[in-house]
Amino acid sequence: MKLRELAGALGCELRGDGEIEIVDVAPIEDALAGTLTFLADRRLAAQLDGTRAAAVLLPADAPDVALPSLRAGHPYLAFVEAVELFHPAPSRPVPAVHPTAVIATSAQIAPEAWIGPHVVVGERVRIGRGATLHAGVAIYPDVTIGDAFIAHAHAVVREGVRIGDRVVLHAGAVIGSEGFGYLPLPDGIRRVPHLGTVVLEDDVEVGANTTVDRAAFGATVVGRGTKLDNLVMIAHGCRVGPACLVAAQAGLAGSTSLGMGVMVGGQVGFAGHQTIGDGAQVAAKSGVHGDVPARAVYSGYPAIEVARWRRLVGALPRLPELVRRLRRVERALGLAAPKDD
Amino acid sequence: MKLRELAGALGCELRGDGEIEIVDVAPIEDALAGTLTFLADRRLAAQLDGTRAAAVLLPADAPDVALPSLRAGHPYLAFVEAVELFHPAPSRPVPAVHPTAVIATSAQIAPEAWIGPHVVVGERVRIGRGATLHAGVAIYPDVTIGDAFIAHAHAVVREGVRIGDRVVLHAGAVIGSEGFGYLPLPDGIRRVPHLGTVVLEDDVEVGANTTVDRAAFGATVVGRGTKLDNLVMIAHGCRVGPACLVAAQAGLAGSTSLGMGVMVGGQVGFAGHQTIGDGAQVAAKSGVHGDVPARAVYSGYPAIEVARWRRLVGALPRLPELVRRLRRVERALGLAAPKDD
Amino acid sequence: MKLRELAGALGCELRGDGEIEIVDVAPIEDALAGTLTFLADRRLAAQLDGTRAAAVLLPADAPDVALPSLRAGHPYLAFVEAVELFHPAPSRPVPAVHPTAVIATSAQIAPEAWIGPHVVVGERVRIGRGATLHAGVAIYPDVTIGDAFIAHAHAVVREGVRIGDRVVLHAGAVIGSEGFGYLPLPDGIRRVPHLGTVVLEDDVEVGANTTVDRAAFGATVVGRGTKLDNLVMIAHGCRVGPACLVAAQAGLAGSTSLGMGVMVGGQVGFAGHQTIGDGAQVAAKSGVHGDVPARAVYSGYPAIEVARWRRLVGALPRLPELVRRLRRVERALGLAAPKDD
Repeated sequence: MKLRELAGALGCELRGDGEIEIVDVAPIEDALAGTLTFLADRRLAAQLDGTRAAAVLLPADAPDVALPSLRAGHPYLAFVEAVELFHPAPSRPVPAVHPTAVIATSAQIAPEAWIGPHVVVGERVRIGRGATLHAGVAIYPDVTIGDAFIAHAHAVVREGVRIGDRVVLHAGAVIGSEGFGYLPLPDGIRRVPHLGTVVLEDDVEVGANTTVDRAAFGATVVGRGTKLDNLVMIAHGCRVGPACLVAAQAGLAGSTSLGMGVMVGGQVGFAGHQTIGDGAQVAAKSGVHGDVPARAVYSGYPAIEVARWRRLVGALPRLPELVRRLRRVERALGLAAPKDD
Repeated sequence: MKLRELAGALGCELRGDGEIEIVDVAPIEDALAGTLTFLADRRLAAQLDGTRAAAVLLPADAPDVALPSLRAGHPYLAFVEAVELFHPAPSRPVPAVHPTAVIATSAQIAPEAWIGPHVVVGERVRIGRGATLHAGVAIYPDVTIGDAFIAHAHAVVREGVRIGDRVVLHAGAVIGSEGFGYLPLPDGIRRVPHLGTVVLEDDVEVGANTTVDRAAFGATVVGRGTKLDNLVMIAHGCRVGPACLVAAQAGLAGSTSLGMGVMVGGQVGFAGHQTIGDGAQVAAKSGVHGDVPARAVYSGYPAIEVARWRRLVGALPRLPELVRRLRRVERALGLAAPKDD
Repeated sequence: MKLRELAGALGCELRGDGEIEIVDVAPIEDALAGTLTFLADRRLAAQLDGTRAAAVLLPADAPDVALPSLRAGHPYLAFVEAVELFHPAPSRPVPAVHPTAVIATSAQIAPEAWIGPHVVVGERVRIGRGATLHAGVAIYPDVTIGDAFIAHAHAVVREGVRIGDRVVLHAGAVIGSEGFGYLPLPDGIRRVPHLGTVVLEDDVEVGANTTVDRAAFGATVVGRGTKLDNLVMIAHGCRVGPACLVAAQAGLAGSTSLGMGVMVGGQVGFAGHQTIGDGAQVAAKSGVHGDVPARAVYSGYPAIEVARWRRLVGALPRLPELVRRLRRVERALGLAAPKDD
């Protein structure tokens, strides 16, 4: 495809030779001859020195560079669109139901589904149009699922769970296990019944081996468009808002709620019954033991506002030195050393 | 059911109108008209203002409230029993073996089992009465399992593992993988043989996608009545005592032992070869690098006694200010600033 | 086997009575009568008091002990070899393909494979000699796998992944899910296409329920001989070097690279785009937010050089006391207390 044509397809301004042939797209570190690459930030222009790329996607206001360029308001988005132009998503498999799949007679699966080998679909399950269920997916009874559902191998959906449109479950994800609710009694630990369910709203994506537990009452909810990475734990009764990103190995204890557009780093832990405001961000590995205000950025264990955390972390390695300096000061003043605690 | 009848069924004292009709049970935040709710603590009585609940379970010594009430020594337990009255657990599926299950000829499965689609049971496996094996459960050879076993979809039990009565494995749990034991040698990393096994005692429950590794020698043991949440890791050679609760994403490194009734918060990590005493509690996200005495409450990374941790955490954000104040003191004393380390 | 014969088989020097019969091997804490045990360190000799072991493997330079002993340059390695002598690994199952396995017509599986029940192998997959695929393993299309592959129950390999010789996947491992790459836009969160793949080099072992994500471009690589424990997360674009050991529940964010022989403790988290040098070690539960030099030992959150971390951790619990002492000093100097921040 000529660069000029690409500019048209992406709605970008062209600068330089539009007749050159673009054969693929690639990030700057992998760019081969003939590729279109991109820089998200005009300050990165030095990275173009010595590149083999044939052209570059740049912010509209970036200075001119030696290569031919396309100018975009959101260069990374334009790059993603270019990737999709050169590498269209593989077409869905031809609708079919594998003969080894076990589908209950009362299940209703809308047309155009692809049901792989060894899939199990329970009684009274309803699945919308165009579902793709890979090998070994297990859907328990009474589950409701919208259109364009994709479940990768061995994903499990427990009884009664409700799933919206265009939801993706990656391999090994488990939706709707009973929550970890128990009553320790003198004669042993008694399970608290879990009458509730899980609701995954439209456009939710759930990572590999991630688990979302059902509520004791009502529902654990993952909001529209939210993406959970691999090995994430969402406990019973949590309410995760729409458009959140929750990175790998993060965990929410019971009944915690995230607002809209919350960004959660990897390995973050939230205590139970916390409220995290809209647009809040929590840095990787933080431990959150209280509410987080809307649009706040938190970090640390225990998590605090990120600017305070950075100052704290900067001072922390000086602590042993402070002990020595304080003792020197005390000696200068003739103050007795305190007993060690 | 009339409130009077419910009082009898639960063994509670009735105060107020026993003739009202109770249609369901619900926690205070979800209580609809006609429901019985509960307050675990008399100090929470203000939460009853404006509730739509028809009646409330209260501690025996709570003051009178506007609603009719039932008085119980353990209101939460009485509430759980009320939930079970109104929502009896679904009856087990009618015993059957799905024709797609693959059961070795030498396996012995006691009567009344329900064996779902695509289950695999290996040679010489013995399973007690009333087992429920959901879709795709895989039991390797030479496993012994007691009565009333429940395994959810795709749970895996490796060869030779021994499992007691009334054990529940949630979806994707893996019991008995070889432990992470290696010998780094100049020509590569050599696996240490794992001759041992895993023992899950009676009434153990294992969460979704949790892993319990087999010991190199002897057995990794999870004690009677202990509950493991989702995505927990129990390494080779650990001995988890009875009646422990281990929350999600917690991990025990090799050969660590927990006593009886230990409570472990989410994302806690234990180093290897530690001994945690009976009744100890470790707060969420702590990192435990040494033994913990019986009945101690630990928190932090590295974990220390919780009262000390709280004082430390309270002082921590003041550290940058302390640096400035100490410099001010040194200047007042004419002391030279130390070189930065 | 007589101790004398064992000395010969292991290439060890014999001291004491070589005619005694050795019936098994066991670590010191489990040693029964007639067993050979070992001490890795000569300073542990006191542990032999009262042992029931018949003989002991010792470092070459250890002083004489009451028991007959074998002397080895690497006693633990000699012990492992003794274990393998007494407990040879079970022979592979007789090659066979279970009739419930679903193998695409275009897949090529070399001779001597054992393919268990409900295995699924996709189109154009190539698998080398002597593979063992346990129940329910799912190999998506276009995967290439070397010789002597072992995959435990329900392991999943996504499309196009490339796997070397002698690789082991434990139960529930997921190789090749799309990475967690998204573009938050005003109208929702858009997935970034993931054109890349995963490469597992020769002799890699992947723990139960561990996930390795595919790269957006190029490949996520796990180097030759590297071992990943259970519930580990390797994000898109990471490059893990050869001969690394990554313990359970550790996680690498996107595009981080580990050098050769890196040792990573349990629950460690690496931020994205970090470079960890050859032979570096990171202690359990550390949070690494920057590069780590070759052969450095890091610990803590945020992780720093381990000697500095130990000094810091030693001083940390004294922080509340420092606040009080500093206030005392300020009072002695007549300095005003600063306002609380």
